[in-house]
Amino acid sequence: MQQQVSLITLGVTDLERALAFYRGGFGWEPVFETPGIVFFQMNGFVLGLWGKDNLAEDAGRPANGHGAIALAHNVSSREAVDEVMAVLVGAGATVLRPADEPPHGGYRGYVADPDGHAWEIAWNSAWPIDEEGRVQFAI
Amino acid sequence: MQQQVSLITLGVTDLERALAFYRGGFGWEPVFETPGIVFFQMNGFVLGLWGKDNLAEDAGRPANGHGAIALAHNVSSREAVDEVMAVLVGAGATVLRPADEPPHGGYRGYVADPDGHAWEIAWNSAWPIDEEGRVQFAI
Repeated sequence: MQQQVSLITLGVTDLERALAFYRGGFGWEPVFETPGIVFFQMNGFVLGLWGKDNLAEDAGRPANGHGAIALAHNVSSREAVDEVMAVLVGAGATVLRPADEPPHGGYRGYVADPDGHAWEIAWNSAWPIDEEGRVQFAI
Repeated sequence: MQQQVSLITLGVTDLERALAFYRGGFGWEPVFETPGIVFFQMNGFVLGLWGKDNLAEDAGRPANGHGAIALAHNVSSREAVDEVMAVLVGAGATVLRPADEPPHGGYRGYVADPDGHAWEIAWNSAWPIDEEGRVQFAI
């Protein structure tokens, strides 16, 4: 089977608010947008914002808490971590962990989006990112 | 900012069990593996399995429930949805929703991995997937 994730769907309580956060904070533009669902074309997959209740009904399981999962957005410099976190907070994010140096190297912090989904903003100089945003594991 | 997710980290309670599931169920091979963390090179990003408590400490927030998020793995035929779901269940997944046809078309079901992370297994003939597993939004 391909080592492939096709879609990440984030359940949200207010789609307009979530879209405003991803557009205004990350600066991302949807590839498809309706009052019910929004899709972003990402680096090899699609990110969707969908009503939490719609996702729960589709998945056959009610939403529950914020889970044990984090998405990371890596940036190209240490300074950019703090800059991006500040922009995200300005767009509605909450700081979970202010940026600092983890034991494994680099520099990172965490914010939660308006629905509580965790985002790590990280500088990891070891992992190359190409022009199309594709990220490669490296040590 | 790049429309880019660098890393998805799944918090797990038993790393060996989680690795056995992703290796034995999806058939994915790690690009890096230690007793503490496992990374898979995916289609443009990295997927990590990490101790739930480690992730919680790193993120500055305790894990809580299973969240309102789903990852999807799209397959190339309707039949493959049921086949893949059966293999995943054999490897330790729990069915959340048996596969059927959603109102928006295609065919999909949902399972939870051994730690409760939701995976949608879907056939969506509209979205092309290239040889390297990169998925393109299309209508």
